[in-house]
Amino acid sequence: MLGGSSNVQSKWKRKSAVTLALTVLTSSQAILIVWSKRAGKYEYSVTTANFLVEALKCALSLAALTRTWRNEGVTEDNRLNTSLDEVSVYPIPAALYLVKNLLQYYIFAYVDAPGYQILKNFNIISTGVLYRIILKKQLSEIQWAAFILLCAGCTTAQLNSNSDQVLQTPVEGWLMAIVMAVLSGFAGVYTEAIIKKRPSRNINVQNFWLYVFGMAFNAIAIVVQDFDAVMNKGFFHGYSLVTVLMILNHALSGIAVSMVMKYADNIVKVYSTSVAMLLTAVLSVFLFGFHLSLAFFLGSTVVSVAIYLHSIGKLQR
Amino acid sequence: MLGGSSNVQSKWKRKSAVTLALTVLTSSQAILIVWSKRAGKYEYSVTTANFLVEALKCALSLAALTRTWRNEGVTEDNRLNTSLDEVSVYPIPAALYLVKNLLQYYIFAYVDAPGYQILKNFNIISTGVLYRIILKKQLSEIQWAAFILLCAGCTTAQLNSNSDQVLQTPVEGWLMAIVMAVLSGFAGVYTEAIIKKRPSRNINVQNFWLYVFGMAFNAIAIVVQDFDAVMNKGFFHGYSLVTVLMILNHALSGIAVSMVMKYADNIVKVYSTSVAMLLTAVLSVFLFGFHLSLAFFLGSTVVSVAIYLHSIGKLQR
Repeated sequence: MLGGSSNVQSKWKRKSAVTLALTVLTSSQAILIVWSKRAGKYEYSVTTANFLVEALKCALSLAALTRTWRNEGVTEDNRLNTSLDEVSVYPIPAALYLVKNLLQYYIFAYVDAPGYQILKNFNIISTGVLYRIILKKQLSEIQWAAFILLCAGCTTAQLNSNSDQVLQTPVEGWLMAIVMAVLSGFAGVYTEAIIKKRPSRNINVQNFWLYVFGMAFNAIAIVVQDFDAVMNKGFFHGYSLVTVLMILNHALSGIAVSMVMKYADNIVKVYSTSVAMLLTAVLSVFLFGFHLSLAFFLGSTVVSVAIYLHSIGKLQR
Repeated sequence: MLGGSSNVQSKWKRKSAVTLALTVLTSSQAILIVWSKRAGKYEYSVTTANFLVEALKCALSLAALTRTWRNEGVTEDNRLNTSLDEVSVYPIPAALYLVKNLLQYYIFAYVDAPGYQILKNFNIISTGVLYRIILKKQLSEIQWAAFILLCAGCTTAQLNSNSDQVLQTPVEGWLMAIVMAVLSGFAGVYTEAIIKKRPSRNINVQNFWLYVFGMAFNAIAIVVQDFDAVMNKGFFHGYSLVTVLMILNHALSGIAVSMVMKYADNIVKVYSTSVAMLLTAVLSVFLFGFHLSLAFFLGSTVVSVAIYLHSIGKLQR
């Protein structure tokens, strides 16, 4: 029984560590984006950067695997070889993200960028609903209430004087935002399902296969969206130090997301990225002299209460 | 035991009826204020109107009492005669409200009217805290979380493009707002304590004494604030149909507040007036062509979740 309790404790520690890593990486990611925009450096092609992120994640997973092989030897759980049965589902999340990213180009015909930031909060609700439907995990009534509050709180924290324009979004814009939220929620929940289906399988092998298909689908995106630009100006046109840092950060946070899927779940991921959004705003005050609005304080209060309710909602199940 | 259950049911019905009455009266009150402002009719003296409200409440309580005396005869519980011990605490709420209303004139040196509407939401928190301290009633953890959400949700629903100015309120403004919130919360909780101290005492007798002192303190307010205006222009200067309707409405909602104190509590009162605030905004869309903001929808969502949590928080105690 003592072994069981120390097992619970080490699981809890691992869960906390990956959640903290995801929060820190996501908020520094947003800081890097603000930094790169303010430096006016945004001329590199986003598709090539995305491809490099996937390639880097692949390389990091392989590096971690070779260390494991040296220490533990090659076993059934950590060998790279795979069956068609295991690997056949891995392209699905990458394909969903590709469709979502392509849609993102079209939604800006109906909504501006700040409006899109607000509509993106649909992700929170779609992730919760799909988590319930696909993974068949129960959330308590209090946890559902907390999830609605998380969505309302994040949106409130992002309000500015132009936010009401989002209410004038045409039906096409609403529909695309909902479709994108469902695609992104589905990709997240599906990834968790794939990773959790084989609990003893080494996470780095699972990541390797996810990222291989990520590379493949991002190569398609380069051809579809940026073929001419890459051909004429070159693959690395417009890259700078901050671009390299962003690629590095995206790769690490991608791996942190996978770890959260393995050792925690999509709900923890959503809370973690929401807290990261609030942290980013607070850090931006010190780094860029931004001002915090009353709406930000109110939204943060609601998010904090949501986190509290989510944690006490779990205990009472 | 059957009698006990039907007693619980009739108590619940009475509690619901007075809460509904308070909600409807409070929201129509706000509608009348908007109406009177839009008609540009606001030249009557507020202190004389307040005095008439107290006088009308006094008269209505006496009318209800005479009917009771005719039907049930004069008993220990419904006789108007009182002891110094019973009546000595009745002036306190009226005195607190007087001080609060006088402060209201000074706070506008530091905050504008919309900013004051936002700061008034401190009332929610102060009522909850004083309810806990003075009446020694417990709220569950979930109910406390719900109360914080109620405050954040009401404030969010009231946000507009100028709301951030409230963050520039000088320290004096914050302090006065907090003092006013404490005074108003204290007056409410103290009234509940007075009314509940003698549960078998007829509510109309209790109201009569409360309102007698209300009349007295409002007479003082007339002398302090509007003596010259009343002397020169007359007591009823600037009165119109809408003024009369407002006085009638204030009197009825004042009585509804007393009923809620007797048969429910201050927490129910706070929820009821918050819902009335949201109802008013929705009604104003139809009546005055107002627009609802995204912040209003978000705030209403948070208030709805707060009400839900308050109700399930009670069941689990």
